[in-house]
Amino acid sequence: MMVELQQGERLDDLQRNGYHIIQNPEYFCFGMDAVLLSDFARVKKGENVLDLGTGTGIIPILLEAKTEGSHFTGLEIQQSVAKMAARSVVLNHLEDKISIVQGDLKEASSLFDKASFSVITCNPPYMNQNHGLQNPNAPKAIARHEILCTFEDVAKEAYKLLKPGGRIYIVHRPRRLMHLLTVLRKYRLEPKRLRYVYPFVQEEANMVLIEAARDGGELMRIDPPLIVYRSQGVYTKEIMQIYGYQE
Amino acid sequence: MMVELQQGERLDDLQRNGYHIIQNPEYFCFGMDAVLLSDFARVKKGENVLDLGTGTGIIPILLEAKTEGSHFTGLEIQQSVAKMAARSVVLNHLEDKISIVQGDLKEASSLFDKASFSVITCNPPYMNQNHGLQNPNAPKAIARHEILCTFEDVAKEAYKLLKPGGRIYIVHRPRRLMHLLTVLRKYRLEPKRLRYVYPFVQEEANMVLIEAARDGGELMRIDPPLIVYRSQGVYTKEIMQIYGYQE
Repeated sequence: MMVELQQGERLDDLQRNGYHIIQNPEYFCFGMDAVLLSDFARVKKGENVLDLGTGTGIIPILLEAKTEGSHFTGLEIQQSVAKMAARSVVLNHLEDKISIVQGDLKEASSLFDKASFSVITCNPPYMNQNHGLQNPNAPKAIARHEILCTFEDVAKEAYKLLKPGGRIYIVHRPRRLMHLLTVLRKYRLEPKRLRYVYPFVQEEANMVLIEAARDGGELMRIDPPLIVYRSQGVYTKEIMQIYGYQE
Repeated sequence: MMVELQQGERLDDLQRNGYHIIQNPEYFCFGMDAVLLSDFARVKKGENVLDLGTGTGIIPILLEAKTEGSHFTGLEIQQSVAKMAARSVVLNHLEDKISIVQGDLKEASSLFDKASFSVITCNPPYMNQNHGLQNPNAPKAIARHEILCTFEDVAKEAYKLLKPGGRIYIVHRPRRLMHLLTVLRKYRLEPKRLRYVYPFVQEEANMVLIEAARDGGELMRIDPPLIVYRSQGVYTKEIMQIYGYQE
């Protein structure tokens, strides 16, 4: 292994292709939402992918393992986080397939060629109430709250960067669904497919996965419900499969 | 019983309060969508309800049985269907609680006082492609296709008829979700709660239930998934309960 862990970092097994990822719990560890997004996103053979706000690089790394996409780029604004993601790429010998770029997603369409990506993914900050935040510069706050970008920024840049017919995949909170759908349509990213994630079959959804197509038509599909637990602390078969765990 | 069945009509037991309903299979029989809508709709004690396009009157009759609403009105454009619904009201001795009005929902806000209903329900026609219809005057075609009204008509009239803070409850097809949500918002009926109906837990949703509030705020909730069958031909416990069947 050519990569050294720095203080506070840990190495996690991704259960895919022998891949590992470096995380620092002081920053922000990836959650189930990122894993579910990389399952929901459809990347066809030869397509290239941009992940906006990539954090640890979890989404490009999982998509590289699961799909036949040609190339994956992760954009991350925080320099220390971007460097950590780049070390995870090296660790897995994926330098030819994955690039980590440090930069601001609000300027993404000036960092990359316009209309150059088949697929965009984004696991954005969910929370839009930033007042009262103890430390708005902390990596965890930046990952969770709309401090450095809003959902509108994501949609605006994504439209410019997607090829005609290209798709964007997002994970977010259902409580903001109207906002998400309205903003996507405003930027001509037409919602085409939704999947709701329900912690238990008898509970309200706590995540929504959205596929939208650049200049797509109006008809939509609602995927089968994704149920997380079959009983307290026991994942459903589908979640086990998505995580790559053996039952 | 003071009500005579006419040729082609049949009497169905609603499994609620001993109520029955008259239906004519030559016209249109109510489906599971109407039953699920009357479960999804929340009518508080003392609230009054208007059902737009009531057909057999199934929704007012079920809501009268299930809720403590003060009064229920069903509006139906087709005279023969409206008369049949009115006979079901008499059959169940509900003349004091339920009124059936014959009229066009596109003119509903001139038939009733503005801002006079706490709750509106609607199980509208789902299909917006009417070309090639064999018989666009047939009651079944009118119930299924947007021949005599569009969803936009429903939202427009509903806004005028609802009291401030009043709610509308709709059942429709998920494929038209973007259209439904966009039209509701256009008429200041803000979507607040959705419930998806999945035939089986591993299948796509084939119905969506929507609650929208007149001039409501933006945040939404997604109710637990409503699964119809637990195995081929066998209803889930929740569906049995909604229908009022004993297991």
